[in-house]
Amino acid sequence: MAGASCAIRGTFFDFIDDPWKHIGHEQDAARFIHDGLLVVKDGVIVDFGTFADVSLHYPNLPVTRLPNRLILPGFIDGHIHFPQVRVPGAYGNQLLDWLQTWIFPEELKYSDRDYARTSARYFFDALLSGGTTTCLAFTTSSPVSTEEFFDEAARRNVRVIAGLTGIDRFAPDDLLITPDEFYSESQRLIERYHRKGRNLYAITPRFAVGCSGEMMDRCRQLKLEHNDCWINTHISENPSEIRTAHYHFPGCDDYTHVHEKHGLLGPKFTAGHGVWLSNDELRRFSKAGAAIAFCPLSNLFLGSGLFRLGRATDPDNPVRITLGSDMGGGNAFSLVRVLEEAYKVGMCNNTMLDGSVNPRDKDLAEAERNKLSPYRAFYLATLGGAHALYLDDMLGNFDKGKEADFIVVDWNAGQHAMRWRQSLIVEGAGPETIEQAAQLMFGVMTIGDDRNIDETWVAGKRSYKKTVEAPQF
Amino acid sequence: MAGASCAIRGTFFDFIDDPWKHIGHEQDAARFIHDGLLVVKDGVIVDFGTFADVSLHYPNLPVTRLPNRLILPGFIDGHIHFPQVRVPGAYGNQLLDWLQTWIFPEELKYSDRDYARTSARYFFDALLSGGTTTCLAFTTSSPVSTEEFFDEAARRNVRVIAGLTGIDRFAPDDLLITPDEFYSESQRLIERYHRKGRNLYAITPRFAVGCSGEMMDRCRQLKLEHNDCWINTHISENPSEIRTAHYHFPGCDDYTHVHEKHGLLGPKFTAGHGVWLSNDELRRFSKAGAAIAFCPLSNLFLGSGLFRLGRATDPDNPVRITLGSDMGGGNAFSLVRVLEEAYKVGMCNNTMLDGSVNPRDKDLAEAERNKLSPYRAFYLATLGGAHALYLDDMLGNFDKGKEADFIVVDWNAGQHAMRWRQSLIVEGAGPETIEQAAQLMFGVMTIGDDRNIDETWVAGKRSYKKTVEAPQF
Repeated sequence: MAGASCAIRGTFFDFIDDPWKHIGHEQDAARFIHDGLLVVKDGVIVDFGTFADVSLHYPNLPVTRLPNRLILPGFIDGHIHFPQVRVPGAYGNQLLDWLQTWIFPEELKYSDRDYARTSARYFFDALLSGGTTTCLAFTTSSPVSTEEFFDEAARRNVRVIAGLTGIDRFAPDDLLITPDEFYSESQRLIERYHRKGRNLYAITPRFAVGCSGEMMDRCRQLKLEHNDCWINTHISENPSEIRTAHYHFPGCDDYTHVHEKHGLLGPKFTAGHGVWLSNDELRRFSKAGAAIAFCPLSNLFLGSGLFRLGRATDPDNPVRITLGSDMGGGNAFSLVRVLEEAYKVGMCNNTMLDGSVNPRDKDLAEAERNKLSPYRAFYLATLGGAHALYLDDMLGNFDKGKEADFIVVDWNAGQHAMRWRQSLIVEGAGPETIEQAAQLMFGVMTIGDDRNIDETWVAGKRSYKKTVEAPQF
Repeated sequence: MAGASCAIRGTFFDFIDDPWKHIGHEQDAARFIHDGLLVVKDGVIVDFGTFADVSLHYPNLPVTRLPNRLILPGFIDGHIHFPQVRVPGAYGNQLLDWLQTWIFPEELKYSDRDYARTSARYFFDALLSGGTTTCLAFTTSSPVSTEEFFDEAARRNVRVIAGLTGIDRFAPDDLLITPDEFYSESQRLIERYHRKGRNLYAITPRFAVGCSGEMMDRCRQLKLEHNDCWINTHISENPSEIRTAHYHFPGCDDYTHVHEKHGLLGPKFTAGHGVWLSNDELRRFSKAGAAIAFCPLSNLFLGSGLFRLGRATDPDNPVRITLGSDMGGGNAFSLVRVLEEAYKVGMCNNTMLDGSVNPRDKDLAEAERNKLSPYRAFYLATLGGAHALYLDDMLGNFDKGKEADFIVVDWNAGQHAMRWRQSLIVEGAGPETIEQAAQLMFGVMTIGDDRNIDETWVAGKRSYKKTVEAPQF
């Protein structure tokens, strides 16, 4: 992989395991190096550890110091729509109406190459300024949008997964693509982009409501012919959508069965939302090694419902979970804001699970798993997302051999309340223990936003730097 | 009232009525002046209208131009805790545990005058930078905190309502105050602060769980002796809290009855949250002229539940509603963020009310009232809040004779997605119609945050100005 070389000295915080496996001592899943050194060659991490240890081996290496900051792996967004970059915050409709009224008309514009190219620049600007360095993205049914997405990703040298987005019913005619055309265009785009530079390809049936059985069969065929490719779709977002899907696939017992029947559920399969999945469907996701993208910003903005994270992390049947902004269904790009809402979803679920509303719903073990500690939160945003997307051999933490995508967090930036809150945890030069680092990062996820991302580095090169602001009273 | 004089030329957007009374044509409740002039003398609006009309009467007046901005009345926060300014974003507990673990230990510090004074400065910095110019605030049971709050409010010349916050059980001993001491200190503070400058006094029983019947009786006595004072408390926030309240007031049929029984429910009474109020309780609030502070940021952050705005705005029994940040139960100061979460609460409620989960719950009229259009949203944040708090004779819009608190909104600030979204609505110099202004403000409330508040003016004087930021890629 092409990339830059650098050596970064600072305070590092990343993950080496899943914190849900370490209940009561979650810090065992994390790694904190107060004075660390990260050595990157051609975009890949070649050494990492304490400055005292690692620097011995590199006596003449020029070192970039990043003081008063926490350095984390870049965030991973497991569910986002490239052609919705200009229309977040659309008013007043739940999923199916919202698609027809706001989204499909906008997505139609992406068959225009200039519009798609300009939007691709916007998209990656927004991603990088929010600290996201990898995403699994939808494009449109127009190959133009897919091409412009991959071309811009290559110019930025970011690791992305995306694909032509198939829909053959329930959308404006010009947005539909026939199963045959979807198949042949997908073939062409896989040849052109998959594993070229950092681009990876996902076979992408938009969602079962918009995809006929024939379209789903074409997806199965593509997966059989290109087993190395990913699969990206939606599932069980909204009750009306679920009823509609059930109506159009009468032979299927539930929404998950639609994907099982068409041979799609398995490793490298990711479906957005899963808000209303039954316990049985979650177990089948777990067994299949399939992933769910938890999109709390969007689930609240579109009123879809509260995803049961504590149920999906059942230790007997753990489902692979990645976070998704689902921008434009979500109303922000930064995973920091996604984590804020993920925390709130867990807290709202827990008012049911503590039995105070209905004693029959009491489940304190599930409630505990719903609590999004900073360890769990930033695991999901980094290594957990990489694990869910089958990218953890390439990225997700600071292990040697991984790609050097990372962010530089200013724990004091953002709204004015931030600084005073954080001063109760540390003064001056910053955290000295893993627990302090975690508490600061909890402040970032609950009080912060994209302003806390001071720098974003991609494959060893600084690709974004925030400027300073100061208020006047 | 003391204040500054100024004349502001720009684009104005405010409210003259309740948009819920104008379903289908909400813009009739709003006022938009594309090129307007606001004339302020000694902090009070003396003239307002189009520049062409008004300027004729003031031929030699120096005018401040604020181009490319929308000017709105200052925001009103109807439920906020001054002594929690440093502890927003506390981890992991629902209401009652959260109070014991995080909040009471912090509030104890506010009997120290230096700590309280420094925090009061922080508090008003945060308020003004978020666009809030009036609040109804809790202090602590220490008169020191109440004095420092009012003294700093007077230095800033902001219109506030607050009062010594009574609690005589279920808190650390040093935070408790006896009913007798609460009564005599409240008497003293009312004399010293009520209607001095812009300060107003609220008799403040913290919440029924923490207040004995004797404490509630003392509040009744204070209200009888000082009928011009406000009353501020909490109600029906969390299911466990409700059960606890019921246990301690066994003679009361429900939570609202506790306040009825002690003679508190009536005009100028405001209770925070009301998440779990029954339809019958909402009707009694409506009849009594009492107000609820809707605190969605906090209700999600503490997992308390989803307030039924559409039920509370039933045209047959409308309840007075103000918005509250409830900071530190809420995790942001700016009403812009409160509106974002208020919108989401409505959307989540509506997935139940559309009948797609349970057909028996279908109520499309209530669902329609839950939809937080920009008209409804910014009405609640300004004139609606003033109406709920019985301040609409003093402030809330740009009517002549009202106090000149206003904010200057930059509809393009904030995360990077903002600018592209807003460019789909207007280009260049800004909105030319009321509908464009409303759509821009919807973008502000869903994609924006405190960064959209470019300036905050208090009683005719600019009290806050944001500086510009620009990213580097």
